[in-house]
Amino acid sequence: MANDSKGVNADLIKERKKCNFDVQELIHFIDGGEQGTKDRREVEELALQVKEVNDEIPEEYLSHMGKYQNAVRKATALIDVLKDHALKHSSFDAYRPTNMYRVQSLVQQQMPLLLHMGMFVPTIIGQASPDQQAEWLPKALSMQIIGTYAQTELGHGTFLRGLETTATYDPNTEEFVLHTPSLTAYKWWPGGLGQTANHCIVVAQLYTKGQCHGVHPFIVQIRDSETHMPLPGIKVGEIGPKLGYQTANNGFLAFDNFRIPRDNMLMKNAQVQKDGTYIKAKSEKLTYGTMMLIRVMIVTDMAYELSRAATIAIRYSAVRHQSQPKPDQPEPQILDYVTQQHKLFIAIATSHAYRLTGNWLWSTYSQVTHDLDKGKLDHLPELHALSCCLKAVCSYDSTLIVERCRLACGGHGYMTSSNFPVIYGVTAAAITLEGEYSVLLLQTARYLVKAWEQAREGKVMTPTVSYMVHFIKNRLKWANRPEGIIASFQAVAAGKTKAAYDALQKYKKAGNDYEDSWNLASVQLANASEAHCRAIICEVLWKEMQRLTPTLSPALAKVLLQLAELYLVYWALEKSGDLLEYSSISSKDLTLLRQRYEELLAAIRPNAVGLVDGFDIRDQILNSTLGAYDGRVYERLMDEALKSPLNQKPVDESFHKYLKPFMQKSKL
Amino acid sequence: MANDSKGVNADLIKERKKCNFDVQELIHFIDGGEQGTKDRREVEELALQVKEVNDEIPEEYLSHMGKYQNAVRKATALIDVLKDHALKHSSFDAYRPTNMYRVQSLVQQQMPLLLHMGMFVPTIIGQASPDQQAEWLPKALSMQIIGTYAQTELGHGTFLRGLETTATYDPNTEEFVLHTPSLTAYKWWPGGLGQTANHCIVVAQLYTKGQCHGVHPFIVQIRDSETHMPLPGIKVGEIGPKLGYQTANNGFLAFDNFRIPRDNMLMKNAQVQKDGTYIKAKSEKLTYGTMMLIRVMIVTDMAYELSRAATIAIRYSAVRHQSQPKPDQPEPQILDYVTQQHKLFIAIATSHAYRLTGNWLWSTYSQVTHDLDKGKLDHLPELHALSCCLKAVCSYDSTLIVERCRLACGGHGYMTSSNFPVIYGVTAAAITLEGEYSVLLLQTARYLVKAWEQAREGKVMTPTVSYMVHFIKNRLKWANRPEGIIASFQAVAAGKTKAAYDALQKYKKAGNDYEDSWNLASVQLANASEAHCRAIICEVLWKEMQRLTPTLSPALAKVLLQLAELYLVYWALEKSGDLLEYSSISSKDLTLLRQRYEELLAAIRPNAVGLVDGFDIRDQILNSTLGAYDGRVYERLMDEALKSPLNQKPVDESFHKYLKPFMQKSKL
Repeated sequence: MANDSKGVNADLIKERKKCNFDVQELIHFIDGGEQGTKDRREVEELALQVKEVNDEIPEEYLSHMGKYQNAVRKATALIDVLKDHALKHSSFDAYRPTNMYRVQSLVQQQMPLLLHMGMFVPTIIGQASPDQQAEWLPKALSMQIIGTYAQTELGHGTFLRGLETTATYDPNTEEFVLHTPSLTAYKWWPGGLGQTANHCIVVAQLYTKGQCHGVHPFIVQIRDSETHMPLPGIKVGEIGPKLGYQTANNGFLAFDNFRIPRDNMLMKNAQVQKDGTYIKAKSEKLTYGTMMLIRVMIVTDMAYELSRAATIAIRYSAVRHQSQPKPDQPEPQILDYVTQQHKLFIAIATSHAYRLTGNWLWSTYSQVTHDLDKGKLDHLPELHALSCCLKAVCSYDSTLIVERCRLACGGHGYMTSSNFPVIYGVTAAAITLEGEYSVLLLQTARYLVKAWEQAREGKVMTPTVSYMVHFIKNRLKWANRPEGIIASFQAVAAGKTKAAYDALQKYKKAGNDYEDSWNLASVQLANASEAHCRAIICEVLWKEMQRLTPTLSPALAKVLLQLAELYLVYWALEKSGDLLEYSSISSKDLTLLRQRYEELLAAIRPNAVGLVDGFDIRDQILNSTLGAYDGRVYERLMDEALKSPLNQKPVDESFHKYLKPFMQKSKL
Repeated sequence: MANDSKGVNADLIKERKKCNFDVQELIHFIDGGEQGTKDRREVEELALQVKEVNDEIPEEYLSHMGKYQNAVRKATALIDVLKDHALKHSSFDAYRPTNMYRVQSLVQQQMPLLLHMGMFVPTIIGQASPDQQAEWLPKALSMQIIGTYAQTELGHGTFLRGLETTATYDPNTEEFVLHTPSLTAYKWWPGGLGQTANHCIVVAQLYTKGQCHGVHPFIVQIRDSETHMPLPGIKVGEIGPKLGYQTANNGFLAFDNFRIPRDNMLMKNAQVQKDGTYIKAKSEKLTYGTMMLIRVMIVTDMAYELSRAATIAIRYSAVRHQSQPKPDQPEPQILDYVTQQHKLFIAIATSHAYRLTGNWLWSTYSQVTHDLDKGKLDHLPELHALSCCLKAVCSYDSTLIVERCRLACGGHGYMTSSNFPVIYGVTAAAITLEGEYSVLLLQTARYLVKAWEQAREGKVMTPTVSYMVHFIKNRLKWANRPEGIIASFQAVAAGKTKAAYDALQKYKKAGNDYEDSWNLASVQLANASEAHCRAIICEVLWKEMQRLTPTLSPALAKVLLQLAELYLVYWALEKSGDLLEYSSISSKDLTLLRQRYEELLAAIRPNAVGLVDGFDIRDQILNSTLGAYDGRVYERLMDEALKSPLNQKPVDESFHKYLKPFMQKSKL
């Protein structure tokens, strides 16, 4: 617990000396180059100069309303400063994966304005016609208006076709009439909708000339620009407290025959003409563009959340000492326990895996989007299948790993001041939002079943499922090296797809129709999809590391390849049942893998603190008593506790009101 | 969404008609008989008459301080009414597993007085001499004093020998001097310690005649009985917000040479005489009696939390409709999706498994405790090994299953009003408190390694590890029936123990000392311990169901046995890798198991709502918008949202203060 003259914990100093690679080089690698680091730090400097981002009393002591007001105060001050910077990056490319704007987590429980830049603006970019963009984009980017994105309803989530809100075209006035026909049709969940936004994108069933044409996006003003009063015909409010995102101001919204001009339907794809004639979009899937963008971004977001969790848990584990295995020696750092390394190093490795996968997915997405603009739609199904399973698996696994990091910090990880509960709130939400976990896995499974049929018929396969062809040709021989593990995961994915397909056929033969058979086999179908996703991540991680490390110093390259191998071996052991079922791996091979796993933990151990320093997350942004750079864990825990309003007086008033009468009654 | 005249959701009415067993009979079965149900309901009636248990504004909208004060208000009113009832049950047996006092969850985020009955009283019963009990027990039971249990310190948790707080005996005044030598020695975590308790049990290093004798319990007054002011030499306060247990008022405590009479050391086991002579306890483990009690109780607590989560998720899934697999038919109840059944039915099954295991463990604990009173210590190590791994695995798995239930409710599961976040706070805390997960697994592993050595030497084995003998004799032949699965899990546990043992030997041979080798093999050792625990739960569940169901109606017996089998098959599939490695199960056998699993889901489906109705958790106690008996999910969600203080005015003041100036600035 000793600290040096600058107050840095002695154990952390020792750990940093042990690190055998250049931490700055790793920082640049993660930022995508030296310039990336420079740009990010510039934004951080800008943000941290905003004095409003500091809380007088930590937010968690405030009431629900107080938290919201505090978040509005901070968010407006912060955006005010960052806006000009962000305006320089107002194109589609501004959404490419980067850690540049992570400073927004200075509003810990999320900004009430989060969906303005996160979904309102990109929907205008992706769904509005050039004329509409010219009208709305400048106002939105300069924040003269604040928008959000209202899609899900109280009774309807992932299944968009089930939305009840209607937009009925009236050719007489050239207006759409928005209406909420029932309680279950209330818009429910959009961030910032409660008390913050005055505009929103509304996704509604489009009716014209007596016919329903499915869901389409509309841009709608919901509150008066001057008074902020809800406009007549609008019912709006917030939905109440949640597990996380406490200050995101998620809201509900209902329309009572509310009229908007025809021009407010976003018409880049489908259109309604003045007379009410409907013109179809080239593909129905184009309407879901914003959702696909968010799914792609979630993969990288998860990488970032994992880097936060890993930083906190690794630094704490270097500072914390526990137990005394040897009577003559002091209590070891808990980072020296192999069970602790087993819990934490996978968090570092997974963060790198998801960042590289996120970058790769972005390239694919970017390519497909450019193709779309040229009218080419061929790669859309593959991208859809990829973004569905990657979003599902990355968010789910991240949530488990964040909890694993939290639990690895023992009781103190349970403290709000550790910041784990906030991080958990973010990753846990990502499992559900923009498409529920199982539903998305089954979307990918539809693609896999089609691919399996193509593979059996000897047809040409798209790249991400071409492994099925090898599987059909011969049973995989186990090879104890990274490429062997990747090939095995592909064999598992193909084998599980086959098994699920067979189950599907069996249920059909037994007299069920296709959709009932699909449902009966759906546990196996979802498992196949998950296995496919793991094969993708493993392959992308390994290939990207092979491609990128040769340009790095040998020391850094070595430790990054160790992390990548750790990721592969970890999952091979986790999924040993699958490997035993679908490859020729033996029990002896598994024993060798376990040995290799233990070797890798030992190899990574000396660099553990350096690896999380490489994530370069500043203390104010990390916001954790356990994870600060100086490691003054116990001092910070105590300092935070002393800020509690309950600790400002020696006796709380509840003693006189309740406790004293209660105890005295007993004495009678 | 249609409701009948009493407002009960039509889908739930339909489900209840479908149920083919007598729900009342199941309720009695869970309560341990008709009388058990009567007793429990009597307590509930008593508690629900207390008008103070109703919140004017839901607690989650209050500030941290407001939440605490509200909890004190409710807890004192509630205990006032229940105290007389509880006083009738003041013996050790009062701690036997029961759902009788689950009404305490009317204080949703835990009572600030929780540890008074939970740990303060049982420590007096278990650790105080008869004279001391006569002095303290009446005051404690009638609540003239409020106590808690202070053991862990800021820098010291599970490893008790590392505690720093000292109690130094001064024979001149016949007093102990309590002292906190450093920041890391501050007591940290005890519930109710912050502003509530005026007494506590303090666990401290005992020094007498210049010698340290390790940790011992002392009873200490910390606040003035009349004024509640901290006594001179006492520094006390609360530790701040946490992931859960928001109103448990966890606190910190430090002593500045604080003196207590010699009599305040709890002297049932070890003693210090007037002259300072130390008399040892018969076993060091006896000091940990309260912790062992809590570990035993946690298994049953987890069963209860699972029943809450399952009730919410199953009822919601019966009411919620989603997607349209067949164009000509309405959206199905999500409970009809097999992936949903896969997520939820295991929650029901696990609740029964843990309840039966908890009862069985209590019998063992009760027997061992009675033996201890007669000076017999032989079964203590086995009980210790059992309670360690069962507490670890049951709390960990419960946490995963609670999250699984929450996620199965989609976005609405993320709402605080679903009550999932509170349930999660309870199960997640249980993984860490009273012994951290990995540490406890490794405690059991020590026992397993000894047992393995005994088995190899052909010695007589204690019952819970005797399966190791069979494993040594011959490789298990797979048998596709419940007993076959249990035998396989035992083979897995034995096989993993052997593998871990071999790894341990390998590391020793490579020149490491025993403790370093232990650490290097610890991932495998912890896995062995987990496998041992699963074998125990599977065996106890199946045997207990076999023993208990013959006295039940055939219909109920059938569905309970289906649940037990589901539990076994679920885990066999989850651990297919282990079975493939340590039994002769084949890939074809696994395909059969998957079929059987899908059959069991289908068999349980019609009874799903009946099964959770059988947990008989009243709406006020369940406290969930999604899980209420009448299934009016959407109405309740909206009603709760409308209670938000932010929804009481059309425009929040933060608009005028922050948002308006912010937007206007952009227009310039």
